[in-house]
Amino acid sequence: MKVGIIAVGNEVVSGQTINTNASFISNELENLGFDPLIHIAVKDNMSEIHLALKEVLSMADLVITTGGLGPTPDDLTHEAIYAFFKTKPKQDKKTLKQIKNKFRLRGYKKMPPMNIKQSYKPKDAKWISNKTGTANGIIWQIKKKIIITFPGVPAELKQMWEDTANPFLKKMKNKFYIYTKTLKFTGIGESALAEKIKPLLTLKNPIIATYAELGQIKVRITAKEKSIQKAKKTALAFSTKVLRKTKRYYFGQDNEILESLLAIKLIQSKKTLAIAESCTGGLFSKRLTDISGSSRFFKLSAVTYSNDTKNKLLNIPEKILTKYGAVSSQTASAMAKGIQELAKSNIGLSITGIAGPTGGSKIKPVGLVYFGLAKRKSIKIKKVLFGKDRSRNEIRTLAAQYALNWLLNEI
Amino acid sequence: MKVGIIAVGNEVVSGQTINTNASFISNELENLGFDPLIHIAVKDNMSEIHLALKEVLSMADLVITTGGLGPTPDDLTHEAIYAFFKTKPKQDKKTLKQIKNKFRLRGYKKMPPMNIKQSYKPKDAKWISNKTGTANGIIWQIKKKIIITFPGVPAELKQMWEDTANPFLKKMKNKFYIYTKTLKFTGIGESALAEKIKPLLTLKNPIIATYAELGQIKVRITAKEKSIQKAKKTALAFSTKVLRKTKRYYFGQDNEILESLLAIKLIQSKKTLAIAESCTGGLFSKRLTDISGSSRFFKLSAVTYSNDTKNKLLNIPEKILTKYGAVSSQTASAMAKGIQELAKSNIGLSITGIAGPTGGSKIKPVGLVYFGLAKRKSIKIKKVLFGKDRSRNEIRTLAAQYALNWLLNEI
Repeated sequence: MKVGIIAVGNEVVSGQTINTNASFISNELENLGFDPLIHIAVKDNMSEIHLALKEVLSMADLVITTGGLGPTPDDLTHEAIYAFFKTKPKQDKKTLKQIKNKFRLRGYKKMPPMNIKQSYKPKDAKWISNKTGTANGIIWQIKKKIIITFPGVPAELKQMWEDTANPFLKKMKNKFYIYTKTLKFTGIGESALAEKIKPLLTLKNPIIATYAELGQIKVRITAKEKSIQKAKKTALAFSTKVLRKTKRYYFGQDNEILESLLAIKLIQSKKTLAIAESCTGGLFSKRLTDISGSSRFFKLSAVTYSNDTKNKLLNIPEKILTKYGAVSSQTASAMAKGIQELAKSNIGLSITGIAGPTGGSKIKPVGLVYFGLAKRKSIKIKKVLFGKDRSRNEIRTLAAQYALNWLLNEI
Repeated sequence: MKVGIIAVGNEVVSGQTINTNASFISNELENLGFDPLIHIAVKDNMSEIHLALKEVLSMADLVITTGGLGPTPDDLTHEAIYAFFKTKPKQDKKTLKQIKNKFRLRGYKKMPPMNIKQSYKPKDAKWISNKTGTANGIIWQIKKKIIITFPGVPAELKQMWEDTANPFLKKMKNKFYIYTKTLKFTGIGESALAEKIKPLLTLKNPIIATYAELGQIKVRITAKEKSIQKAKKTALAFSTKVLRKTKRYYFGQDNEILESLLAIKLIQSKKTLAIAESCTGGLFSKRLTDISGSSRFFKLSAVTYSNDTKNKLLNIPEKILTKYGAVSSQTASAMAKGIQELAKSNIGLSITGIAGPTGGSKIKPVGLVYFGLAKRKSIKIKKVLFGKDRSRNEIRTLAAQYALNWLLNEI
């Protein structure tokens, strides 16, 4: 069943509020096997709500609205829907009593008269009860279409979705079920990855698409079948097909992130880690300690921004720093060894490079980063050029991402 | 001038990506005196993009699209626009060369063939150059309408907005001019701040509104007048009025952030800084080194996650750690002094606390953080409880924010 989602509210259209409700609802709908087709946001204005309703009803059978159910005169969603279908709503005494009671519970002597309108609905519509606020939603089946309305406050909407809308939608028969699998890659660009799986990108079912983010590419496989089991089987079969061509760059799926995968591996292998960061300035450590429980493997991180501290703290000979420079394979190697010895950890990692925008030269341009990895008996070095045209933030993010992925593969 | 914003992308309509681009663009448009009327999000599908274009063009003169400019076959925005207006785009050799060069700069031998289509545009359209990615946007004036296209990656969109779209839109004639001043506050909640300036929040011109973010509150003053000079004068007069009631919590305006203000102060006062972080895990260092040029004052940061490294590296007596614990004023004090001495910096800062979700107790709950600040002859300590119901990420963000603000006031 095709669905359209309409957000009503000046604050959304003017950009003051980010429309997180639309993505919440779409996600929920997809999991239930519905097909969200369009999101629209319009202002608190009768004729514009009508335009949105007309557009969405022309393509979808189910319309979900958010916002505009409040007590003030600019809250118009229900009024607009009733006018659109030329229906007169009736007052529901029981609901009026409940709203009055909510005001009493909050210490008000009586309900402001403005709120009276929140007790009206068409006779054949069902209430969606709002446990927190006074704005109830409705489920209304009219002219072979279904209208479901919610208030705009995300927490209220979520409770009402769980309690009423979700069970109602689950009961509706669905011809199709959707299963989605997301594969994550790093160390390759979007178009290079897409070239490898080009024939798969034009299929109708499953739909396979690539999404680029800074430092990682996602491949999303969406299968649509007559049972959820079948949809899952299709999605997983094609995820195997995708991986056959791209395994080298794959690191995780769905909610997995590099830092959580690395944390699990370090804990399982009972290895401890110490880091000497220079150009990333603490970002690598920050990301790894985002993971709760990281104190089990994270011994020490030193952000040694100056030659002086590299020399004294990490015991890097001044000769290396002056002869080869702070950004060099020799320094990266000595930093990794130095932090490992200082922290007495199993692994020592180093990151030293030029994040820019200044500090680059012809031989050592902005974007050049060296990585060092010291284990008990070996030291490995990697040299990566992240691209001269990258911003400081991008180079730092890409360098941290690279180091997380490298470490993940080396443990 | 009325504007409609269309997001193209399955990932938006299916709810995997929250449409932050629409709110960014609307905010910017309002500041320029334009009137955003509608947001629509549709899938990567030619006929649905056409429906959205038809709808938006029926009510607006300017259409802005985001997404669908990538190299893969499902990226259809430009193709859909050209088909809608029955135009054949032409290849632009110069742009093709630039795209090829981007691949070279990133270490690829050659451009994947998929990217060729990104070098096509109608002859009379102008490019919006993308400094990072290969997906350039266009500005196209056709049949009394204006179409502006952007890629979906927010960072790329923002750069392209600043560099090209914003100057283009500014040049268009507006009856009214808008001037916006944003004041930034920390250490106070949104409603407490709003109470202090309550009478100002209901004005029609300037419009004054509060926006809550994690660790800071913004007050935005938007004045609309017949000349830009007049709008500026109005906005500044009211920003003085706001500050009269709220000065204590104010730290900066517009694009100023705590880390940039702190960096300027440290450079001007020729002071150097070293940091010992525990619960923030590198986040404080990361934020301060986001600022280019931070190597001038940033000497060393140590993320000492274990008692062992606190003891050995920062020279904190084991007696203090066992008697008072790692999260205590005594340890915070010793950490600040320890890092200052280790790095031989003018200032030593320490952060130690319980970020959770585990590790809390009745006496030392999740959210408890101690801060230490060692100068040449003095040591100051702060104890803050950031709230038991906060997430790990929130506590870490708030602690780093608190430390930046404290340091800013203490130098």
